[in-house]
Amino acid sequence: MEHTVNSRSRLVVVGGDAAGMSAASQARRLRDSRELEIVALERGEHTSYSACGIPYLVSGVVPRKQDLVARDPDTFRRDFAIDVRTGAEATGIDLDQRSVAVRGTGGGHWTERFDHLMVATGAVPRELELPGCAAAGILGVQTLDDGIAARAFLDRNQPREAVVVGCGYIGLEMAEALVQRGIRVRVIDSGEEPMSALDPDMGRMVREALQGMGVEVHLRERVTGFRSQRDRVTGVLTAQGEYPAEAVILGTGVRPDSDLAREAGLDIGPTGGVAVDARMRTSAPGVWAAGDCVESFHRVTRGPAVVPLGTHANKQGRVAGTNIGGGYARFEGVLGTAITKVCGLEVAHTGLNEEEARRAGFVSEAVAVESTSRAGYYPGAERMTVKLRAERGSGRLLGGQIVGWENAGKRVDVLATALWNGMTVEDMAGMDLSYAPPFSPVWDPVLIAARKVAERC
Amino acid sequence: MEHTVNSRSRLVVVGGDAAGMSAASQARRLRDSRELEIVALERGEHTSYSACGIPYLVSGVVPRKQDLVARDPDTFRRDFAIDVRTGAEATGIDLDQRSVAVRGTGGGHWTERFDHLMVATGAVPRELELPGCAAAGILGVQTLDDGIAARAFLDRNQPREAVVVGCGYIGLEMAEALVQRGIRVRVIDSGEEPMSALDPDMGRMVREALQGMGVEVHLRERVTGFRSQRDRVTGVLTAQGEYPAEAVILGTGVRPDSDLAREAGLDIGPTGGVAVDARMRTSAPGVWAAGDCVESFHRVTRGPAVVPLGTHANKQGRVAGTNIGGGYARFEGVLGTAITKVCGLEVAHTGLNEEEARRAGFVSEAVAVESTSRAGYYPGAERMTVKLRAERGSGRLLGGQIVGWENAGKRVDVLATALWNGMTVEDMAGMDLSYAPPFSPVWDPVLIAARKVAERC
Repeated sequence: MEHTVNSRSRLVVVGGDAAGMSAASQARRLRDSRELEIVALERGEHTSYSACGIPYLVSGVVPRKQDLVARDPDTFRRDFAIDVRTGAEATGIDLDQRSVAVRGTGGGHWTERFDHLMVATGAVPRELELPGCAAAGILGVQTLDDGIAARAFLDRNQPREAVVVGCGYIGLEMAEALVQRGIRVRVIDSGEEPMSALDPDMGRMVREALQGMGVEVHLRERVTGFRSQRDRVTGVLTAQGEYPAEAVILGTGVRPDSDLAREAGLDIGPTGGVAVDARMRTSAPGVWAAGDCVESFHRVTRGPAVVPLGTHANKQGRVAGTNIGGGYARFEGVLGTAITKVCGLEVAHTGLNEEEARRAGFVSEAVAVESTSRAGYYPGAERMTVKLRAERGSGRLLGGQIVGWENAGKRVDVLATALWNGMTVEDMAGMDLSYAPPFSPVWDPVLIAARKVAERC
Repeated sequence: MEHTVNSRSRLVVVGGDAAGMSAASQARRLRDSRELEIVALERGEHTSYSACGIPYLVSGVVPRKQDLVARDPDTFRRDFAIDVRTGAEATGIDLDQRSVAVRGTGGGHWTERFDHLMVATGAVPRELELPGCAAAGILGVQTLDDGIAARAFLDRNQPREAVVVGCGYIGLEMAEALVQRGIRVRVIDSGEEPMSALDPDMGRMVREALQGMGVEVHLRERVTGFRSQRDRVTGVLTAQGEYPAEAVILGTGVRPDSDLAREAGLDIGPTGGVAVDARMRTSAPGVWAAGDCVESFHRVTRGPAVVPLGTHANKQGRVAGTNIGGGYARFEGVLGTAITKVCGLEVAHTGLNEEEARRAGFVSEAVAVESTSRAGYYPGAERMTVKLRAERGSGRLLGGQIVGWENAGKRVDVLATALWNGMTVEDMAGMDLSYAPPFSPVWDPVLIAARKVAERC
């Protein structure tokens, strides 16, 4: 059964960040307030902020927290006629009664009736239940409030030494933020090289660049606990030893916050994310979900994947909002594309790395090609390495990774577009990509890599 | 009849630049000198140079002419066993006798017998047979020798004022070169706006940027002649008036140099380029052609197009060389992708503009979206405009144009990849492109433009 919008119906949105508010505002574009009442429940204070901007708030590159807020609650109320309730946490969903139980930060409890329900509960940090983890100075950076608190702690205490736990995208960005603040940084990661999204040969380049920036990189180490004095962190413990730290950043990743959905009886997928179809419908009629709390269709593995990124949250929210508003839209899946930079080094990937390809059952070949960002003779040409992986036999592109300096990273979008279309590397090698000496060698690094891996397939 | 390589056969290459030498060296990779003798005839002194780098040689950004030479004749002789003859101009091809008539710069004449013939005669400037055009200081920039001569003229005479005739890619790059040399620059172009490859609304942005750099832009004017004193240019004449100029750069474009092929009886296409198939075979067995002298298959119009760019010359030459060497390769066509920059402004396009789409019989819709190169709150975010054109009804992408500052231009490769795959703009709008605040707003400009044009189709 589909719930469509008849007379005046009511949409309740749980979670007021990218996915929830994209859905709400898109539904509003299609249905005015005489047709659709929209209530958005947000347990924090902020709506629609750029979580991806938090490292830049912590570093000070972005000066004010307001800079990260795309639209505040008042804007949604005024311009979109969306009844945003901050400090309002959804504590339960009753699918039979079609209502949400809410607890206010002030202590009040009430319920909200819905015709449509949008679940956009986001993600929570992976638990790191370690001895001493409650000490001051052990800082999460997942929500805007986390980021504000982390920056305040660093401003107030001016630590000289810090540890970043986890060296994925967030870990890298936080390492950059701390370096920019003049803090001596150690990163600790359990992997063979930083950035487990990359193959180790590409991760090695990231490690060498980090080391070149003065960052100490400790690999194959797991954090076992924290040392503190007077409830303030002083060190990080691993099986290998202890590292002094006046501040610790937890960059260990997140998992879908799907508990509320699970308790309500919505289907949860094998990855732990809320299961949705391409129109962002959950297993219950009239209940939609989007953003970091859902699992998405991965276009290469053809299976579910959790990719908690603002870009998907925005797209999925918009798709849900279009469908809630009576339109038709589909979210056509993810490739796992991601990009970051650390002090000038650009790192990006899309699709499957070696380990992911193997786990997905592909037999693959890969080639890493070192080239330059401009014609070799043009000033400012910088090194970049492009690695492509393709299925043996068919030559179908499976994934790509880029590590390099200025202008390297965004080239991953060419790989993502090729991957989106299921191209073979042979076909890619002939593509008409742009060339002029300030932008590329005459054989673009992407074309060379495609040709070389095609020769192996 | 196919000519394949039996016992020892002989390949004669006419033209020793990108296409010719790519073919020669690729054929050599597949066939050693016991199987294939290779003779390359080049009327100039240089082989395999980057013609696209000439503006940067003239500006001085690239200091030495050798920097532009990828491989010199001695390298080809030594490392590839290719008998390169410089100062050797092919004056006729006898398809029955399978021989090429050659004239040496020293005055000698001889013939070269061939089994395979590679025609890579390149392009010649469009004739500008105007009164006074032989005066000193009227400078072409098509060959490396032209570039060397232009730079020498500018070094020697230190002009204060110069005119660039034609404001396409080369005209823009030469305007930048002259600005960088501290010369006052006027550009004169017959079009409504600079860069006729772009729609006028995008060309206007280029004009405004040029004007912002102090370049005088004269549009809808045709050059009618040149004024000179003592055989040295002093001014450029148009119907509207006279512009003082101590140097004039001719940036009026090129046409395929297909005369030799035509006289030999090879099929010439409707564009004036040598007609070839996807394997770079001409109408005569065992005769191949590639580079600026041929016409290529345009993947959007599905018709022939002349796109004289080094990137195609290299790819086509490589394809021809593979086939000559007994392998199998195809050149899968062009999109007309191009990119340039002028003093920081990046300009790029791919596929069809409004006029080209109309002429090709498409009814199209287009949207130009202004966005930024980074998240709005991230330092260094620069304006960029992305314009996409799609076929009405089907929504198929027909072309894209980008004008913007730092990091704008190379995004055209995403458009080119989408175009290569025949994507619809609706499908493009959902793509998983990379996002992080230093690289893009959360809705990448390409995605926004795709969505907006999809809404119109």
